[in-house]
Amino acid sequence: MSLEELRDECVQSLRADHERGASQLARMALGYLAEAARDASITDVATLRSELDHLARDLAAARPSMAPIANLVARWRAAVAGLAADELAPARAAYVEQAQALVAQSQQAALEAARRAAARIPSGATILTHSLSSTVAEALHLLQGRATVIFTESRPRLEGHRLGRWLSAAEMTGQMITDAQLGHFAAQADVALVGADAVLADGAIVNKVGTYLLALAARDHELPFYVCYESFKRTTATSEETSLEEMDPAELSPPELPGILTRNVYFDVTPARLVTAWIDEDGSIEEWSAG
Amino acid sequence: MSLEELRDECVQSLRADHERGASQLARMALGYLAEAARDASITDVATLRSELDHLARDLAAARPSMAPIANLVARWRAAVAGLAADELAPARAAYVEQAQALVAQSQQAALEAARRAAARIPSGATILTHSLSSTVAEALHLLQGRATVIFTESRPRLEGHRLGRWLSAAEMTGQMITDAQLGHFAAQADVALVGADAVLADGAIVNKVGTYLLALAARDHELPFYVCYESFKRTTATSEETSLEEMDPAELSPPELPGILTRNVYFDVTPARLVTAWIDEDGSIEEWSAG
Repeated sequence: MSLEELRDECVQSLRADHERGASQLARMALGYLAEAARDASITDVATLRSELDHLARDLAAARPSMAPIANLVARWRAAVAGLAADELAPARAAYVEQAQALVAQSQQAALEAARRAAARIPSGATILTHSLSSTVAEALHLLQGRATVIFTESRPRLEGHRLGRWLSAAEMTGQMITDAQLGHFAAQADVALVGADAVLADGAIVNKVGTYLLALAARDHELPFYVCYESFKRTTATSEETSLEEMDPAELSPPELPGILTRNVYFDVTPARLVTAWIDEDGSIEEWSAG
Repeated sequence: MSLEELRDECVQSLRADHERGASQLARMALGYLAEAARDASITDVATLRSELDHLARDLAAARPSMAPIANLVARWRAAVAGLAADELAPARAAYVEQAQALVAQSQQAALEAARRAAARIPSGATILTHSLSSTVAEALHLLQGRATVIFTESRPRLEGHRLGRWLSAAEMTGQMITDAQLGHFAAQADVALVGADAVLADGAIVNKVGTYLLALAARDHELPFYVCYESFKRTTATSEETSLEEMDPAELSPPELPGILTRNVYFDVTPARLVTAWIDEDGSIEEWSAG
């Protein structure tokens, strides 16, 4: 495979994955960089460097609503830019190592954020969540035997089914609902807990579409609304600047009707005023301050 | 078919219809009463009366979340109870006539409520709605050429597809969204308009699940939230007393998972404090007062 084909394939697979969350896809992007660094048919360091840079830029732009992809890739680029490697083999090894180190750092951060989130949930609580966040799944795992979960199926990709399988395998109990039942079931919950695809400069949360509705229902029921995420999710964009990806309407199998446009926006923005606490690996805050 | 079989069939068809709204099903229930009154193999008025009474009671109980079924059937029972018919043929005719008169009255009331709702929508407005209400559809029809519609597909039965076909056939324009996008698209709307399956004694609205989320999003965006309905939708039950039907979870094709219960509650309750105006055939009010 040529480097160009590899680049296209990596970008396409990030773009086509409508089920995995931002953290997992960001780590996949680092995996692609490591793979290219190790295997690319290249004979000099300068070409390797420029090809990987090209791949990194394309990966960073592949999923604009998912902050950690651009953030982790940028971290990787900054790290390898500082490396003084003149020989090909040690350059390859160093690039791979940097990618792996960042994957580990991201995983560690998510786990710590999950630990901090779990610590805030009272024993015996019923947790209401939406979509599938790997960080939230970690937090739920830590609460095994001490919490029950109400979760949405999450149209259109039904990643709620995956969360259900995961909870069931972990011998946890829960109720799966349609997205439209989020409001009705808020009355049965003690706390709302979600992940994030991005945490904006103004503290607003970009997450799977419907999260904003969950936040409104939580506020109306006086439930705390917690967001937990690794700090790689933070971006400098504000709510006005953020880009919300829209996917192919064919995913919704709509009838073809003149005059009727089917919309499939995947993310929404939950403003900071609806968030009770932002929980990352460094701690949790109840009041957002920019910067 | 025996009268018992007919009764079962009528009740089953009301129960199994998860797409039509409460008004349409209430009129269907009156149609069943008319059909039974006309065709039942019965030889005396007393038996006809008692059999129809039995059918009426069963129909009234078939869909507990849908107030107009019980209300219209009760009105029909009250009307025929006052009829002094000793002969079978004129009794049949009178029972049929009463049912038809109530169907016409219900249709007239819904149309008038729709007219009043349409009159409140400013020209050029974008209307956000959820599920499929025949009364809302009438209101939209009256706004043809002067409004555009954002509407949900409405899981699980996708009655939004039917609304889309209807709008398209009426040469109206609109955007169809998943239920979870209701919050995101509130920013594009000028007004929220829904029907009701029941209007409770405290002014709360029972409607397709997700309506409460729409009302929350409307409030958060400072959009008026209008409910339009024929007054047969009103009940004496309060939010605490109302019964929200739950359908077979198999409709959601969930994976079978130990410990995980799939819920399919069809309706939710939108409290009066989220309603901007209640619009029925007699007028519209901005402040609910019981009774």
